[in-house]
Amino acid sequence: MLLAALRGEVLEANLDLVRRGLVLSTFGNASGVDYEAMKPGDLVITDLQGKVMEGTLRPSSDLPTHAALYRAFPSIGGIAHTHSEYASAWAQARRTIPCFGTTHADYFHGPIPVTEVMAEDEIVGEYEANTGAAIIRTFENLDAMSIPAVLVANHAPFAWGRDPRKAAETAWMLESVARMAYLTVSINPHASDIAKTLHDRHFLRKHGEKAYYGQME
Amino acid sequence: MLLAALRGEVLEANLDLVRRGLVLSTFGNASGVDYEAMKPGDLVITDLQGKVMEGTLRPSSDLPTHAALYRAFPSIGGIAHTHSEYASAWAQARRTIPCFGTTHADYFHGPIPVTEVMAEDEIVGEYEANTGAAIIRTFENLDAMSIPAVLVANHAPFAWGRDPRKAAETAWMLESVARMAYLTVSINPHASDIAKTLHDRHFLRKHGEKAYYGQME
Amino acid sequence: MLLAALRGEVLEANLDLVRRGLVLSTFGNASGVDYEAMKPGDLVITDLQGKVMEGTLRPSSDLPTHAALYRAFPSIGGIAHTHSEYASAWAQARRTIPCFGTTHADYFHGPIPVTEVMAEDEIVGEYEANTGAAIIRTFENLDAMSIPAVLVANHAPFAWGRDPRKAAETAWMLESVARMAYLTVSINPHASDIAKTLHDRHFLRKHGEKAYYGQME
Amino acid sequence: MLLAALRGEVLEANLDLVRRGLVLSTFGNASGVDYEAMKPGDLVITDLQGKVMEGTLRPSSDLPTHAALYRAFPSIGGIAHTHSEYASAWAQARRTIPCFGTTHADYFHGPIPVTEVMAEDEIVGEYEANTGAAIIRTFENLDAMSIPAVLVANHAPFAWGRDPRKAAETAWMLESVARMAYLTVSINPHASDIAKTLHDRHFLRKHGEKAYYGQME
Repeated sequence: MLLAALRGEVLEANLDLVRRGLVLSTFGNASGVDYEAMKPGDLVITDLQGKVMEGTLRPSSDLPTHAALYRAFPSIGGIAHTHSEYASAWAQARRTIPCFGTTHADYFHGPIPVTEVMAEDEIVGEYEANTGAAIIRTFENLDAMSIPAVLVANHAPFAWGRDPRKAAETAWMLESVARMAYLTVSINPHASDIAKTLHDRHFLRKHGEKAYYGQME
Repeated sequence: MLLAALRGEVLEANLDLVRRGLVLSTFGNASGVDYEAMKPGDLVITDLQGKVMEGTLRPSSDLPTHAALYRAFPSIGGIAHTHSEYASAWAQARRTIPCFGTTHADYFHGPIPVTEVMAEDEIVGEYEANTGAAIIRTFENLDAMSIPAVLVANHAPFAWGRDPRKAAETAWMLESVARMAYLTVSINPHASDIAKTLHDRHFLRKHGEKAYYGQME
Repeated sequence: MLLAALRGEVLEANLDLVRRGLVLSTFGNASGVDYEAMKPGDLVITDLQGKVMEGTLRPSSDLPTHAALYRAFPSIGGIAHTHSEYASAWAQARRTIPCFGTTHADYFHGPIPVTEVMAEDEIVGEYEANTGAAIIRTFENLDAMSIPAVLVANHAPFAWGRDPRKAAETAWMLESVARMAYLTVSINPHASDIAKTLHDRHFLRKHGEKAYYGQME
Repeated sequence: MLLAALRGEVLEANLDLVRRGLVLSTFGNASGVDYEAMKPGDLVITDLQGKVMEGTLRPSSDLPTHAALYRAFPSIGGIAHTHSEYASAWAQARRTIPCFGTTHADYFHGPIPVTEVMAEDEIVGEYEANTGAAIIRTFENLDAMSIPAVLVANHAPFAWGRDPRKAAETAWMLESVARMAYLTVSINPHASDIAKTLHDRHFLRKHGEKAYYGQME
């Protein structure tokens, strides 16, 4: 893909997050850069160590977290970090989002995990890089491509995908799933995860070699 | 009704579900068909065994569920399957929606039932057809035309009616009723069903031979 | 006021309820009359016994409830009956809405009462007139003009005022108050009513002879 | 700043509160002044004792509260008093809003405090001035500029900042934080405050001499 096209795609994915209410648009234009006024050429290109390759603005202070994830999960082509309300509430509550139903299973092949609370020295030190490390540890025994999202404890979600558009879509699905899980535990505090068979059936209807959802076999 | 008119009505009922926020519009156009770009001629006509009679696209993978319901409930002329938030939360919580008030009683002549959790072999086997069978078993002692909706456990609601427009309307009323029931149990976890007399009075004001709601006798 | 002006005001108040999301607009135009297409001349004029004085359409089946309230509370010049979500949830939960704060006290001089559950014979008999009687009994020791709303148990709210516009405004304030009370008990199930002194101060800042809210003394 | 510019800024900040849904727009134009029709010249200028310096309309009855805060906190250049839903619900529940996550820590350097319930004689006496005094007592051991908001018990929030625009922004951030805290305690009633180290890290990324958020160091 040409770099110009990638810039356009990244900007569009960011605007998507704003339009879907997952991030609060910069209030007026006092802090940071106003998304609506941003042009593809304003985006900064860095390498996987976070070194600026192209661009005049400085990259986001969250860059070390993103760079750590791109290095650890080579299949990732886009990451969306939001403070969307329901997913952030689960992160603040330090609770894994259980898989209560097929809406969840259609998109995520397991519960949405929450990271461990970070240690004092991780916060005082290279905080943003350490946030990335905490996420990576959470996926030691999980597949980051079939569960493409995480809750950072006391913070908020990160979601990802093969490209920026897919990452934004995942952030949006995560928020829907988080909201339905919230309603579910409010109705029934003892609600339990669905059976693995049902989870597999729904995830595999949509993903992998034998996917058939949306059209008959 | 001419087939052309029926195609238009079915498409319109689908768009109605999107406009009312009961189904998430296909995200971009990556998966499935984009509702907004769909034309009546894109719809596929099948018989009650699910055999395609007319059309070039493949029918939805959910077809076996719908076909089973049309065969079991001959008065049904339209079915709406959504993952609307509040009704799905009750389905995920595996809880019948009690009839807490007259808004519910005006539209549904009883609580909204939830199916039993499907067995392993039902999920591994003809899953979509078995979903239909689970719904039909739930109505063994209930009248599907006076309680025109069901919650599939761990999944989401199905609603129906005498035609596609009525099915979409029922899906929307179900979501309103599910939302009000959610608020009710949040305020009072011990809230109880209304008396049968009151339920009958309200349902029969609007339905059946002695209906009088909306105009004086 | 000329009858033509009153017709216009009543229609406008009804549209206000729809615009503010307090009543669901008639779905399509299948049942009842479509508000958006209604003209002042479509409204039916009755006397306080419910006898039609002018108009060709039939009056609402809820007329006997409204007529009973107009007869019992002579200061009332408008009544709004909605199934607005939060107020209806309190009605379905059969719970009085406590006065948790000054927003409530600014508009209602006491908690919002809930009627007793109606007896079997009241429901089987003249149901709509008996609904009015149940409301009137609830106000035996309350002032209907300083607490201009009620929750009918298992049903929904009625709100009123000196004219139709004020009744619609009260229905809207009631919904706001019901929603904030809902959030309050969710945060703190042991939240308690505010002190009578504070309640009086706020209500009397806005109402009665010594009102001063909005401008300095 | 010229007085004309300040008038414009104050009016704009008020409209901002309405547009963001933090205050209910005056219903019709029955009570108070309609914001949408207000012009900068309608605003009343008073001194810090509340004495009118310029203007023909009377100042708000809430003026004594605002004046008390301006006198006590000299760095304040704008105050926003709303009855926004979630912040008011915490005020009605008489609960401090804990700092459950980094969204909160990004804007407020500590939990959002709630005032003590006012005594009978404070309510009967100079109520509005005493409300200001109750807020000031709450901040005896807190820094009003790094925690620029308070919940008045049984009432609603006040938020402030160095100018009117910043005060409106703070009122809006407070509502977001209050809403996410509400969801958090609903998911996990035992959720606890984040560690002081994390709180400091996030607040100081955005505020003070070493702020670096939004751009790399």
